[in-house]
Amino acid sequence: MAPHAATETTAITDTEGIPLPNPLTAKIPINDILNRRAKAQQAQWGVAAPTSMDAFRINRQQQQEHKPKAKRWDHYLSHETTSRTGSALKDAAKWLGTPGIISLGGGLPSSEYFPFASLSIKVPQAPFFSEAATAQSGTLLTAGKHDLAEGLSIFDIATAFNYGQGSGAAQLLRWISEHTELVHEPGYADWACTMTVGSTAALDMLLRMFTRAGDVVVSEEYTFASAVDTMRPLGVRVAGVAVDAEGMLPAALDGLLEAWDPAAHAGARKPRVLYTVPSGQNPTGATQSGARRAALYAVCRKHDVIVFEDEPYYFLQMDPYSAGAEADTPAAAPASLAEFLDALVPSYLHLDTDGRVVRLDSFSKVLAPGTRIGWITGSEQIVGLFRKHADLCTQGPSGVSQLMVFKLLDEHWGHGGYLAWLMHLRAEYTARRNVILQAAEQHLPREVVQWTPPMAGMFFWMGLDWKRHPDAASKSVMEIEEQVFMRSIEHGVLVMRGSWFRADADSEMTSLFFRATFAAAPFDKIQEAIRRFGEAIRVEFGLVQTA
Amino acid sequence: MAPHAATETTAITDTEGIPLPNPLTAKIPINDILNRRAKAQQAQWGVAAPTSMDAFRINRQQQQEHKPKAKRWDHYLSHETTSRTGSALKDAAKWLGTPGIISLGGGLPSSEYFPFASLSIKVPQAPFFSEAATAQSGTLLTAGKHDLAEGLSIFDIATAFNYGQGSGAAQLLRWISEHTELVHEPGYADWACTMTVGSTAALDMLLRMFTRAGDVVVSEEYTFASAVDTMRPLGVRVAGVAVDAEGMLPAALDGLLEAWDPAAHAGARKPRVLYTVPSGQNPTGATQSGARRAALYAVCRKHDVIVFEDEPYYFLQMDPYSAGAEADTPAAAPASLAEFLDALVPSYLHLDTDGRVVRLDSFSKVLAPGTRIGWITGSEQIVGLFRKHADLCTQGPSGVSQLMVFKLLDEHWGHGGYLAWLMHLRAEYTARRNVILQAAEQHLPREVVQWTPPMAGMFFWMGLDWKRHPDAASKSVMEIEEQVFMRSIEHGVLVMRGSWFRADADSEMTSLFFRATFAAAPFDKIQEAIRRFGEAIRVEFGLVQTA
Repeated sequence: MAPHAATETTAITDTEGIPLPNPLTAKIPINDILNRRAKAQQAQWGVAAPTSMDAFRINRQQQQEHKPKAKRWDHYLSHETTSRTGSALKDAAKWLGTPGIISLGGGLPSSEYFPFASLSIKVPQAPFFSEAATAQSGTLLTAGKHDLAEGLSIFDIATAFNYGQGSGAAQLLRWISEHTELVHEPGYADWACTMTVGSTAALDMLLRMFTRAGDVVVSEEYTFASAVDTMRPLGVRVAGVAVDAEGMLPAALDGLLEAWDPAAHAGARKPRVLYTVPSGQNPTGATQSGARRAALYAVCRKHDVIVFEDEPYYFLQMDPYSAGAEADTPAAAPASLAEFLDALVPSYLHLDTDGRVVRLDSFSKVLAPGTRIGWITGSEQIVGLFRKHADLCTQGPSGVSQLMVFKLLDEHWGHGGYLAWLMHLRAEYTARRNVILQAAEQHLPREVVQWTPPMAGMFFWMGLDWKRHPDAASKSVMEIEEQVFMRSIEHGVLVMRGSWFRADADSEMTSLFFRATFAAAPFDKIQEAIRRFGEAIRVEFGLVQTA
Repeated sequence: MAPHAATETTAITDTEGIPLPNPLTAKIPINDILNRRAKAQQAQWGVAAPTSMDAFRINRQQQQEHKPKAKRWDHYLSHETTSRTGSALKDAAKWLGTPGIISLGGGLPSSEYFPFASLSIKVPQAPFFSEAATAQSGTLLTAGKHDLAEGLSIFDIATAFNYGQGSGAAQLLRWISEHTELVHEPGYADWACTMTVGSTAALDMLLRMFTRAGDVVVSEEYTFASAVDTMRPLGVRVAGVAVDAEGMLPAALDGLLEAWDPAAHAGARKPRVLYTVPSGQNPTGATQSGARRAALYAVCRKHDVIVFEDEPYYFLQMDPYSAGAEADTPAAAPASLAEFLDALVPSYLHLDTDGRVVRLDSFSKVLAPGTRIGWITGSEQIVGLFRKHADLCTQGPSGVSQLMVFKLLDEHWGHGGYLAWLMHLRAEYTARRNVILQAAEQHLPREVVQWTPPMAGMFFWMGLDWKRHPDAASKSVMEIEEQVFMRSIEHGVLVMRGSWFRADADSEMTSLFFRATFAAAPFDKIQEAIRRFGEAIRVEFGLVQTA
């Protein structure tokens, strides 16, 4: 079978084009959502209308009976954050409910002056998701300018293209909140979601809430370079925690915090924030197991640490890998949406009973980065303060993006269809991951390169035994890394240098890694690129080609 | 004539539907732009490709010969800003130019996994801009997923929906830069533009570049409330400068800065930033004349002050108003695009020879707020540092918005068509402004209310003579304001209280203002609302109804 055949292995068998027949959705509580929806208040669909999470949490009543409320984090919040007061102008909106009132209040332009009469997108009909299938059976979804007033939809151009709340529009926020509850079932009652213009902005804003110059944040010893770059200008440094194939080691985290001595860290107070990418970590590709997450969460409780759970790759969790298996034969792919949900590692948000986790989600890896729509989930206190900053900074995401995503997810696919799409992505990324692993098995010299099959994400992390490099005695690890990198370019392949991802660039560099992504290139290019990288390594390490 | 007939008074007479015949465009240098464009480098249309302003400044060569270079602002930049270094990962993109190289570098998803095959919008054909005309003669613009690869367009879904640069995509940034040069002709050579996710975020980011806690920014004594709310959490306060009907008074600004005594301002150092809304200022509606801007700019040079020129309403400049004229009879509406451009008050950006002005533009008031696309223009140094923050925070605007706006402005309307649209808005807002002024003349008691006809923007600012209020002797101005406000609600109209816009809420309140917007409500509602407000004032002030 051709590698791309993975598309067709998705376990949805209905050939009539009817999305998501009963057997697939029976075990997920989509009906609960639909019942809840009947009670939604119409007022929140209006232009820049305020939203209330109360209407969006599916099982709020049961939760309040059985689940704890989040702790308060006043003692951890920055002066900037606690001085965010409400706006008198926004408060004035309360008078709009007065019967018969005419508002000459808010300076919102009339939708009459939006030069857009309709917006249409052509999208796949679930479960026929490939580009080829979309060309054949795709559906055209259209939003008109005045659909809300005309009773055709609860969201339209007149609403979405005007000003909105920092939380994003209620229409899409409802869908996001329902999806979050469906997948994560947060462990406490008063959680909330608010949209972001992407996790990059969300991290910048969260750092300004919880840190100050001189602080240290803890993270994996190799971590997302942009996160480190975001922290540096704020005067915040990163202390790296040792990792194994399952990511951060709880004992190492506990040891670091337990023995924290400000004098050893340029005077920094004990860290209050853990920044982690639990699934398909960038750059190591490591995925923390459920047990690992629980152990790390326990350490964070012990030391009263807030967790920034950055999860762009959560839904790029893959099927297990068996060395030597065919790239296009997934082992144990889930057979239904319920099985798919069960196969996902539980999130920190699910484990959290304190409201100490702020989860960062994003559509960038699962719909398209250009939507610039993400969201955070956390306690109402934290989310509320974040939203106040958003109101005076990023505001909500683009209304054009929100309307487009709403048409697709809420009105077209629904929750079940979106989960089916995510299953499709799981199969696709599994196939891509298998291709790079098989190429590695075939082309990389095992005597100096080692790796762990990634279980999620986009990245393949290769460790090189630099001590076996001919120049090991005379050159630094950094110099050897530079040499191998330049040799790879010479052989026609670009991979990223491990040193670019070091949490603390000032610490001694004792290991040699390279990161390759299998997310973007065509399969044959991935194979060829890995072959070239193997060649470059052999030249550098003076090895004989054996394959 | 019905008030809306203003739409048809736009001076474009071609009835064949051919946009922008020669006589209208002859005097604006659109041909220069088209010649310049032929030299554009194709590489910058790619996914997340870096952009260069060099290709976008139309008259760069002449400028370099005749215009000064911007000053450097190192001594004014915050530590946060100066510690923004480049990213090793972004630098790695330079290897992508190596012939034959295969990249397993950047973690960008494949466009194969964007579930969007096409995006279409229905938009007006210039110059037939009304909703009714769009329904009849509107055009459907469609972007496909792979238009770039297929040679159909330089921008498509595969590109726009992937990750991009913090500056926004080159495709739209080019258009924005050309438009900026066409309208403003900056007074120095090395200016640059970069997109923002809106001026609200831009202001937050600029404040972090140029101020620190304890600083004072100068602004109009009544100013945009959200700007004050953005500054407060950063520990930045506002010193209000006296205004007249043309906005901020140069002598008052000079006096404040000349006599600056930190001791009188809680230890604040002499202000380094002026925040001003020069056209249709919010809330006063005042528009600074060209002479006023030049005088204020001279004061800023004298005291080495950076100017944040926030101009959302720049293109909502209106035709002159004659009291008693018909609402729908514009006086001296411009007859061509060249006349329209000539009729605009010159901007600070145009006057600026030092690169001390950072201009904030936005599509919110002229296309739709929901696009969340704005841009700043300033010196390459300032814009470059701003973009570095954007790369690690907001990133560029939504790619969905960018693609939609590009299809409309670049591929459909072109520069001339967009200017014709702005002329249309000018006529529409002129008509709206005339409606509220005529209602005011008819319904407000002149003996206690005074106003100046606004020449731009969305706001009508009414001063009330609180000393003539029956409770003037026994109550504070704030209490009287509260009473009049509550009385207005009782009479069925919502207007904004002037105190909500005070630059310095701690200073003594000595005047009584209310703000009404004429941007949104239908004409008959505006008339009725002003009638009700007049009624409420009469009741409050114990006046007899005379009309």
